[in-house]
Amino acid sequence: MSKQQIGVIGLAVMGKNLALNIESRGYSVAVYNRSSNKTEEFMQNEANGKNFVGAYSIEEFVNSLEKPRKILLMVKAGNATDATIESLKPFLEQGDILIDGGNTFFHDTIRRNKELSEAGIHFIGTGVSGGEEGALTGPSIMPGGQKEAYELVEPIFQAISAKVNGEACSTYIGPDGAGHYVKMVHNGIEYGDMQLIGEAYFIMKNILGLNAEELHHVFAEWNKGELDSYLIEITADIFAKKDEETGKPLVDVILDTAGQKGTGKWTSQNALDLGVPLPLITESVFARCISAMKEERVAASKVLNGPEAVPFEGNKEELIEAVRKALYMSKICSYAQGFAQMRAASEEYGWDLSYGDIAMIFRGGCIIRAQFLQKIKEAYDRDPGLANLMLDPYFKEIVESYQKDLRKVIAVAVEQGIAVPCFSSAIAYYDSYRTETLPANLLQAQRDYFGAHTYARIDKEGMFHTEWMENK
Amino acid sequence: MSKQQIGVIGLAVMGKNLALNIESRGYSVAVYNRSSNKTEEFMQNEANGKNFVGAYSIEEFVNSLEKPRKILLMVKAGNATDATIESLKPFLEQGDILIDGGNTFFHDTIRRNKELSEAGIHFIGTGVSGGEEGALTGPSIMPGGQKEAYELVEPIFQAISAKVNGEACSTYIGPDGAGHYVKMVHNGIEYGDMQLIGEAYFIMKNILGLNAEELHHVFAEWNKGELDSYLIEITADIFAKKDEETGKPLVDVILDTAGQKGTGKWTSQNALDLGVPLPLITESVFARCISAMKEERVAASKVLNGPEAVPFEGNKEELIEAVRKALYMSKICSYAQGFAQMRAASEEYGWDLSYGDIAMIFRGGCIIRAQFLQKIKEAYDRDPGLANLMLDPYFKEIVESYQKDLRKVIAVAVEQGIAVPCFSSAIAYYDSYRTETLPANLLQAQRDYFGAHTYARIDKEGMFHTEWMENK
Repeated sequence: MSKQQIGVIGLAVMGKNLALNIESRGYSVAVYNRSSNKTEEFMQNEANGKNFVGAYSIEEFVNSLEKPRKILLMVKAGNATDATIESLKPFLEQGDILIDGGNTFFHDTIRRNKELSEAGIHFIGTGVSGGEEGALTGPSIMPGGQKEAYELVEPIFQAISAKVNGEACSTYIGPDGAGHYVKMVHNGIEYGDMQLIGEAYFIMKNILGLNAEELHHVFAEWNKGELDSYLIEITADIFAKKDEETGKPLVDVILDTAGQKGTGKWTSQNALDLGVPLPLITESVFARCISAMKEERVAASKVLNGPEAVPFEGNKEELIEAVRKALYMSKICSYAQGFAQMRAASEEYGWDLSYGDIAMIFRGGCIIRAQFLQKIKEAYDRDPGLANLMLDPYFKEIVESYQKDLRKVIAVAVEQGIAVPCFSSAIAYYDSYRTETLPANLLQAQRDYFGAHTYARIDKEGMFHTEWMENK
Repeated sequence: MSKQQIGVIGLAVMGKNLALNIESRGYSVAVYNRSSNKTEEFMQNEANGKNFVGAYSIEEFVNSLEKPRKILLMVKAGNATDATIESLKPFLEQGDILIDGGNTFFHDTIRRNKELSEAGIHFIGTGVSGGEEGALTGPSIMPGGQKEAYELVEPIFQAISAKVNGEACSTYIGPDGAGHYVKMVHNGIEYGDMQLIGEAYFIMKNILGLNAEELHHVFAEWNKGELDSYLIEITADIFAKKDEETGKPLVDVILDTAGQKGTGKWTSQNALDLGVPLPLITESVFARCISAMKEERVAASKVLNGPEAVPFEGNKEELIEAVRKALYMSKICSYAQGFAQMRAASEEYGWDLSYGDIAMIFRGGCIIRAQFLQKIKEAYDRDPGLANLMLDPYFKEIVESYQKDLRKVIAVAVEQGIAVPCFSSAIAYYDSYRTETLPANLLQAQRDYFGAHTYARIDKEGMFHTEWMENK
């Protein structure tokens, strides 16, 4: 009996769709699921007549594969991944390749890569973005791990990934946890993008009074310009969708309590560990937390009053265009932060990341896919060591000329009582980053005053301490 | 030979000062330091003629103490604490009490409390705030651990702590890590307060052109009103201090790169774990990170332009007063976030915290001490279950009437290119928290569109999924 070229463990929707995607590119695939009825069901339905073999024990599964074995794990991140690896281990041989395609915390991937490599087994941690649909038709793929193992699976990753202008949205990211790290930051950026769109939506809805149909047209229009992206596209779609039951726009009957699965939180926590400013994405994580406090907000809305309502008297079309520019500039500030974090992580964890390649594979397949990522790729092509995206000539021109719109939109929203945590955070980042002198001199004086923490001076080397209370 | 009532391990400045404080209240104290020359030096100088015994081995130290032994550890947080505990263990007996007075991560305190209690040894993790000076003359003390052990050391803590209107700034916080947790949040709040003062300073310096002497007068004046607090007081002092070498205001020759020791970062990371919004303190942590990127900022300042300079044409005194109100309102938003985080932690870790008591012990001794904490205490006396500080009648009145000043100050600063991340974050929190409906309905639609995450509806129970691309 001939052996299968690759095996997939875990037949939940992402695992199933990736398996179907791989098979559709001409590979023979073995599948295994802990509950065998899922395997049976899959074999009888989606896999019917295709090049699949269903296995009903781990041993049977491993033995059905060509050597070196290539096994894609699509199980729940965390303990389930460790348990699956443990159950595989007795049957694996030196040179076999495990691939974890889950949303795994990158420190776990670093640990697993290290532990398995001691037994001669390769471990690739792979970010996969694109949701259910992307998994089936072409996701963005971010693999990290042993380079020599990556090379053996590269043809498969290239084949199944999204393509942009014929280029595959998959490339080798770096050693051990690098792939899962980049996927984590991707998700953090996604949080920021979604909150920014939410703020733009609420300004237009609450200050300009736009209804869902009008919002559909605005976002559809924006999607034709520099904001062209998957998230803007689906936002336009969403505003056009009617609720079948009530006939109202569906978005208007959806409850405003956001869920989250943790990757945004990890991105912020890691930024704090690295000491890299990531305020915009972090505000977007906290915005989800506040949205989830629905009952408390409803109660507070009956107690705490906002500003006196003042009808907007400016030009409607002008404000919409200012919001568009505010959104684009804020997005640039957010990506600048995310890419700066990857740069710090690359140094901290020894990954030697290529930011141009990362921007390139973000262009297609994934949730944050956008025309604009081409501009980021070009920026890093021009200068692979670019300290901050905003310093690139293209982005510099945009942020300098759009800043007045962002400032205006913030002023209007703040005056009218519309919460714009991410727009505000974007301009604060821009104004901090471009400012030679910040008020931290006072802060250092305070720390030295109460805690003798010492301070540096602007006019000579060294650390100094002052007896502040002397002669007071 | 008679035994000592308490022992102190670690004679760096905080340990030394606490030991001196304890002895000054009539207690006999044994001291031990790993390098014995520090102990000798202390015994010959500060301790000379006082009720101290110097010990030169751990065994001698432990044997010099009354039973149950009370031992205060003042060593570096982290591995040094574990190593010291290990070295003590062979000599300790059931019922002895170890007290960790360092800035320890609360999860470490929970672990140590558990491990030691298995051997019948009590472990109290204690926050101590007030810097060097406070340690010597009266700090704010936040002890957590076994209640029955706390009761045995309570008289000492009460004796050495700061007093406000005759009340000691020390009280039992809760089990295991509760004391160190509250100290951590205290420090996070301190980060926020310091950044808010920095933003107020920079608006007045850069928009109104106030010099150090004028700023001294403004802060000295503010310290007479509702902002009356240690940090405002020392800020006034700082602006009055001249550099001996150059004759310039000292603050103007201090480099604007802020340091940090990690407690602010922990507070933000824990807020993210708990899912509690803590945007203001987190922005202040990131502001320190940006300030530390001095070289990058200097380079960026030569590339990225701000808004066109427009001289401020409003009334100077009015803007100063608006900044004062903006600062007070932002401070309220920050404490509301910090206290809400403690509430969430109390539930998560089973601590049954008393927020009124915590506000009470923050009133004196510690870095964030302020008149305003009396108002927080009163708010929790009125309603111990208060969901958010801003809902208390006193604070509600302030935030409702000061919001227009905060909005105005943000608009001016943003227009002029002065970074105000924490002022902005404060109003975004206020506007989010008091708003019944946030744009998270769109976000849930997006998540359901690309990831089938499902959503709740406003008009019926349950979770729903839509095939968004159907009939597109």
